[in-house]
Amino acid sequence: MIITELIQKSQNKAPLSKTEIDWLVTNFTQDKVPDYQVASWLATVFLNPLTEEETHHLTEALCNSGKKLKWDFKTVDKHSTGGVGDKTSLILAPLVAALGYNIPMMAGRGLGHTGGTIDKLNSIGFETEYSSEEFKNRVIKNKLCLIGQSQDFCPADKKFYALRDATHTVANIPLICSSIMSKKIAEGLSGLVLDIKYGSGAFMESQKNARLLAEKLISIGEKSNIKTFGVLSSMEQPLGRYIGNKLELIECLEILKDPTKAKKQYQDTYGLSLLLSALMVLTLEPKSNLNEAYKKCEEALYSGRAYEKFLSLITEQKGDLSRLKLNCEKKVFKATQSGFMNYTDVKALGLAAVQLGAGRLKKEDPINFDVGFFCYKKNQDPVEKDEPLFDIYFDSKKDLSEPLELLQRSFHIETSVKNCGSTKWMSEIIKLENKTFKTIEFDINLTKA
Amino acid sequence: MIITELIQKSQNKAPLSKTEIDWLVTNFTQDKVPDYQVASWLATVFLNPLTEEETHHLTEALCNSGKKLKWDFKTVDKHSTGGVGDKTSLILAPLVAALGYNIPMMAGRGLGHTGGTIDKLNSIGFETEYSSEEFKNRVIKNKLCLIGQSQDFCPADKKFYALRDATHTVANIPLICSSIMSKKIAEGLSGLVLDIKYGSGAFMESQKNARLLAEKLISIGEKSNIKTFGVLSSMEQPLGRYIGNKLELIECLEILKDPTKAKKQYQDTYGLSLLLSALMVLTLEPKSNLNEAYKKCEEALYSGRAYEKFLSLITEQKGDLSRLKLNCEKKVFKATQSGFMNYTDVKALGLAAVQLGAGRLKKEDPINFDVGFFCYKKNQDPVEKDEPLFDIYFDSKKDLSEPLELLQRSFHIETSVKNCGSTKWMSEIIKLENKTFKTIEFDINLTKA
Repeated sequence: MIITELIQKSQNKAPLSKTEIDWLVTNFTQDKVPDYQVASWLATVFLNPLTEEETHHLTEALCNSGKKLKWDFKTVDKHSTGGVGDKTSLILAPLVAALGYNIPMMAGRGLGHTGGTIDKLNSIGFETEYSSEEFKNRVIKNKLCLIGQSQDFCPADKKFYALRDATHTVANIPLICSSIMSKKIAEGLSGLVLDIKYGSGAFMESQKNARLLAEKLISIGEKSNIKTFGVLSSMEQPLGRYIGNKLELIECLEILKDPTKAKKQYQDTYGLSLLLSALMVLTLEPKSNLNEAYKKCEEALYSGRAYEKFLSLITEQKGDLSRLKLNCEKKVFKATQSGFMNYTDVKALGLAAVQLGAGRLKKEDPINFDVGFFCYKKNQDPVEKDEPLFDIYFDSKKDLSEPLELLQRSFHIETSVKNCGSTKWMSEIIKLENKTFKTIEFDINLTKA
Repeated sequence: MIITELIQKSQNKAPLSKTEIDWLVTNFTQDKVPDYQVASWLATVFLNPLTEEETHHLTEALCNSGKKLKWDFKTVDKHSTGGVGDKTSLILAPLVAALGYNIPMMAGRGLGHTGGTIDKLNSIGFETEYSSEEFKNRVIKNKLCLIGQSQDFCPADKKFYALRDATHTVANIPLICSSIMSKKIAEGLSGLVLDIKYGSGAFMESQKNARLLAEKLISIGEKSNIKTFGVLSSMEQPLGRYIGNKLELIECLEILKDPTKAKKQYQDTYGLSLLLSALMVLTLEPKSNLNEAYKKCEEALYSGRAYEKFLSLITEQKGDLSRLKLNCEKKVFKATQSGFMNYTDVKALGLAAVQLGAGRLKKEDPINFDVGFFCYKKNQDPVEKDEPLFDIYFDSKKDLSEPLELLQRSFHIETSVKNCGSTKWMSEIIKLENKTFKTIEFDINLTKA
């Protein structure tokens, strides 16, 4: 096989066979094909996107490049396409584990305007680097283990991703799908719930494109015999109130510790975490229904079992909650006029947090775990002049002009509530049944305070 | 400037500025941008072709990467897009030089199914590697010097071409145009004649696409203040009778030595060489007309001055005509049926010659200067069963099955002359005048035997 022939085929939109894609991935991973030829192929399929069949083959090839876990029991995980203030993993993982399900969770670090579960856990010293063997043993022992991306799994994906990152070929649906799903398939899952974000803080801004992405991801999951559900959730405003590593952990702890009190304050984080938990349960309990599963999850939360599981997870992976104490300055950002809150550019809000030091623009950037924002207002909330809009947690040694500029750009005070973005945190739950995508019905009132 | 931003722009079909293209070419040439990023950009502009403006900027940037000749007098050159049996340079260069015009000719080596002027000259020991300084001095002294591609000129083009070759991004009109024209502009030409081939033996098979290519090349030339004419010439059959390095040199010598005798035998080589010569003259003599210029060239040929100039060129560049003696076997390939000759796949005929050893598929391949074909028949010629169709000049140590298979595939004996390809060797002569492309009238009967 010759790589230039594969490039030529993709240039002509002729689909590559499974053998050809396997060959490409294997030889690239083993450094037998130079990166400039693979970069050429990636640029080609960036403009001539891979078919569903090719995407499936690529996903499998990426997955087969590393270890693949096998379990004697059913396992389930969740994946989010990333958002601002998106912290549901820290709630749903202990919650679903508390119900007795097994969760081998491989999570990401923050990159760009979105945060990462691994950074949040690292902020209290939590260990997230284990060998595949140890990862497996910990799931067997504790029902739950959370790790970062390991070289043991999908090394080809890591190599592909680095090349895509350097050649502006990241933002491509089939390539994104195969990258995400290869890692999930390597986890040896029985069930998977995908949280697909839409809105100004999401990778896919339009709801329509988010749905397309959801469909493609679900298709790949189901093709690999993973029961897969997708939730289209809103990034038209930050999720919850806190943005930042320790700060988001604080919000999760409040919900896990005292859900009755936290439910109103963090209605969207609360609702989405419980919904995703319920869907995780449902992937493994096909005879149940979503409302039933939801109640089961609510029960695990209100009984304190989810909180207990969270605490034991922290202990098992050597985290230390006393490190949650913030070591930074805090100041209040006030409204300069009255009206109604409207988040117009949630991505800018995420980037403001990155500029404070909460995230990284390049993989090598260091992180300040303490800094971030508290958001007093949600979309459509009335605002009085001089009322606090945000608490800014910052490092006094850092210049605030750039984060403040970005913060300013992220919202607008409207004179009419009609001009504000939606308050809805979720728009649709999707499953694949008999080769068609269907909506799963759910009584959203269950989540209301 | 960041390369990924340039890639992104080209992905979105947003044109790059002159500054951006200059930056890209300069930094790639100086190894400051890695080849995988440039490969990604090339793959992108392969699918989203560069605009005319961008192509012009790229051409200039490639040209500016190396030396650029300046002359105290007018200079002219010819470039062909490559064909089978295409040997006109060896006739027109001494002919036009004999008329007193200056020709700094940078020529290519054979690659793929087409031959190269430099290989043909090397077959008799002719020197084709000089420094830019020596090249210049030789033109000043002798009015004519022929060299191969030198590192002194357009080193960026060489680097780009190697990367394109390795990433299947060669066959792209704007990239081809900028590669060809950058080298011609570096020669510091006042006039340029482009021989654009169409037909089954040409890079551009359709006449329509060949015309588009001609227009783009002419535009770039004129933008750089080079008076540029284009000829659309036929590759629906091999040019002339001989294919192969020494063999083509023999055909040229026959025409230069005894045009009266050779005119009938090699009518197309004769006609095209004289026409291209006349157009070269015309680029430098705007007040003349083509028929006049043609007669001037014919006079230089029939007076023997062109032949004399050819002989002195050989001496000046240390060629040795005694080395033309062939050192190989010869056998006749006969017709298995009667009918009319039709060249159906001239590329296959070129590849058959390559398989005999006359050319190279990879840059590193060695060449056998002696082997090749003599073609007894042209399109529409009547054929009797058992009549010779080809002489095959071959190396007896080499297996003939592959070349014979390709030879077989290259033609068909038709039962009716109506089914045969055209006998025409030229279809149009094009110039740019007041921003529109016009046809130059020419009395083709002048070339008839």
